[in-house]
Amino acid sequence: MSAPRYTPLVQSLPATVPFVGPETHERQRGAPFVARLGANESVFGPSPRAAEAMAKASGEIWKYGDAESHDLRHALAEHHGVQPENIIVGEGIDGLLGYLVRLMVGPGDTVVTSEGAYPTFNYHVAGYGGAIHKVPYSDDREDPAALFAKAAEVDAKLVYLANPDNPMGSWHRGAEVVAAMDGLPEGTLLVLDEAYVECAPEGTSAPVSADDPRVIRMRTFSKVYGMAGARVGYAIGAPGLIAAFNKVRNHFGMNRAAQAGALAALQDKDWLTEVQTRIKDARHRIGEIAAENGLIPLPSATNFVAIDCGRDGAFAKAVLDSLVEQGVFVRMPFVAPQNRCIRVSCGTEADLNAFARALPLALAAARG
Amino acid sequence: MSAPRYTPLVQSLPATVPFVGPETHERQRGAPFVARLGANESVFGPSPRAAEAMAKASGEIWKYGDAESHDLRHALAEHHGVQPENIIVGEGIDGLLGYLVRLMVGPGDTVVTSEGAYPTFNYHVAGYGGAIHKVPYSDDREDPAALFAKAAEVDAKLVYLANPDNPMGSWHRGAEVVAAMDGLPEGTLLVLDEAYVECAPEGTSAPVSADDPRVIRMRTFSKVYGMAGARVGYAIGAPGLIAAFNKVRNHFGMNRAAQAGALAALQDKDWLTEVQTRIKDARHRIGEIAAENGLIPLPSATNFVAIDCGRDGAFAKAVLDSLVEQGVFVRMPFVAPQNRCIRVSCGTEADLNAFARALPLALAAARG
Repeated sequence: MSAPRYTPLVQSLPATVPFVGPETHERQRGAPFVARLGANESVFGPSPRAAEAMAKASGEIWKYGDAESHDLRHALAEHHGVQPENIIVGEGIDGLLGYLVRLMVGPGDTVVTSEGAYPTFNYHVAGYGGAIHKVPYSDDREDPAALFAKAAEVDAKLVYLANPDNPMGSWHRGAEVVAAMDGLPEGTLLVLDEAYVECAPEGTSAPVSADDPRVIRMRTFSKVYGMAGARVGYAIGAPGLIAAFNKVRNHFGMNRAAQAGALAALQDKDWLTEVQTRIKDARHRIGEIAAENGLIPLPSATNFVAIDCGRDGAFAKAVLDSLVEQGVFVRMPFVAPQNRCIRVSCGTEADLNAFARALPLALAAARG
Repeated sequence: MSAPRYTPLVQSLPATVPFVGPETHERQRGAPFVARLGANESVFGPSPRAAEAMAKASGEIWKYGDAESHDLRHALAEHHGVQPENIIVGEGIDGLLGYLVRLMVGPGDTVVTSEGAYPTFNYHVAGYGGAIHKVPYSDDREDPAALFAKAAEVDAKLVYLANPDNPMGSWHRGAEVVAAMDGLPEGTLLVLDEAYVECAPEGTSAPVSADDPRVIRMRTFSKVYGMAGARVGYAIGAPGLIAAFNKVRNHFGMNRAAQAGALAALQDKDWLTEVQTRIKDARHRIGEIAAENGLIPLPSATNFVAIDCGRDGAFAKAVLDSLVEQGVFVRMPFVAPQNRCIRVSCGTEADLNAFARALPLALAAARG
């Protein structure tokens, strides 16, 4: 054969990646990072009970994982006070977003998200031929009313809303999101990404019924639970929608040790509380460091803080480049005016001390 | 919204699963299996070095896995004497087959496989709207010439060939597959699934160039390497085709501990040799048990043995049902005449003793 016969859609797709990973950066710079504060991972790690469960499971890794993630799904249902039929477990929120987009979006179908919101969602939409319409942030926050109005305007099949938001760390009260859903058009499914909700103030989680057919909520063990590398996410939604995932998902796709780890993590409330405290402390410390350097930390309901560097995107990029060069891995928002910020994940004391040392030099470098 | 607006393709898909997993069976029967010999897992487990690497990685599981699987990909390239650009690592062969089908197959595109071959491949093809054409086995073996002729007849984009074959355990010499590729039509990509090749006689792996654009080979850590639950597979192919996976794959989809485990497993040649020996011994023992019961074990180049139960599919199904009822999990081929067999994975001595005890009772039950 002369060349593989890709689908027309695949031929049209660019060979891009949603993110460049920290290991790729490290290989490019020829040295490991001193502080890994760019991917909103939880440096505080998994629950010791989860780590133990995963270590123990490594000897049983010859078995395929349970295709139904039965035990984890049932524990999650109990945790949320819903039915197991309301829960689908998948390979991280990234994996679940891919399945969801595949269920709904074909060439030419429209989808709405915020300008500067999660690129991996956009990657999936583009990958299935969907047309993305974007709404700007309002005061560094996602704007539910504007998103839903745009969804009505373009007849969107999906509208994406992260609450709390990444990359800005901003949030809405869950009740406000629910109230805004009155403006959600018929035929549009709200994809409510609550990846960071365990870092947020009480009342941030949307108080919707799990059976509400207008919304699917995404949750993860990658953030507060400290298990990003395990790849365990789940979605809560109406039973019919949840069952539809079975038409397309990779049924034996879950890592068996990850299933066991997530189950143990869910049961370790003490560790959750401990990490929540450490996150609050780290957010506070990041804010101090920013202020010591004359910068403004934005309020955050997540495990990271967006720091307003006070000038434009080029300036923030120069700050970021110097931080990365000094071995402090951070990221930044993609679009103006949010790209005046850098985004710093919560770290250990050592991580944040490294950041505190590097930031003044980075600012000096950026100021030329 | 009244109902989610699925794509027309998704609406047309049945809510089926390619396989029912052993845990689902166990929940249905209300008791664990005594012997787990149905999923061609490697009961001999992973390399102790791999298990140690995975256990060690569980503390670092807060980090996302390397999106490029750089170290593993490079080690695999060295192992196979190819370039890293010839290798894509993914979430098991199942995951990679899904990506590959997505790259090539849209509604109405044709694909060829054998009647009774791997259902998960068919699941992916159906899931992307492809039309599957099937070729019967010839003497319980896949028939490359017939597959390629059918591919020419229906202008197939993909043709699937497992060598060694699952579920029959039969195989062709790699050189025969390559010779048959002279009949592979232009525009058809051969998907050569070599999941079991490490169990097979020397010379079974197809001696094709990694840059040959006519073929992509699938390999896995789920079989001889004993890491099915880790979900690590890889494909070897021409750089352009390998790069195309980056357009659609879940870039951060790999479990970090699994990456570390696979790397360690690859380096433990002693364990590979040990497991290969145990598989040979177990195949021999399964053959003895079959013969003791007047049944014919088929030759196998895999980590399982198909046993000809001597009558039709209904009879074999009755034997299987009784085995499962007695706590011995096995499976069987799906279509006649291969469904005259049951398929028994290699097990420990205890596993096979349990099978030896259960089989006479199962045969008696099936004979009524």
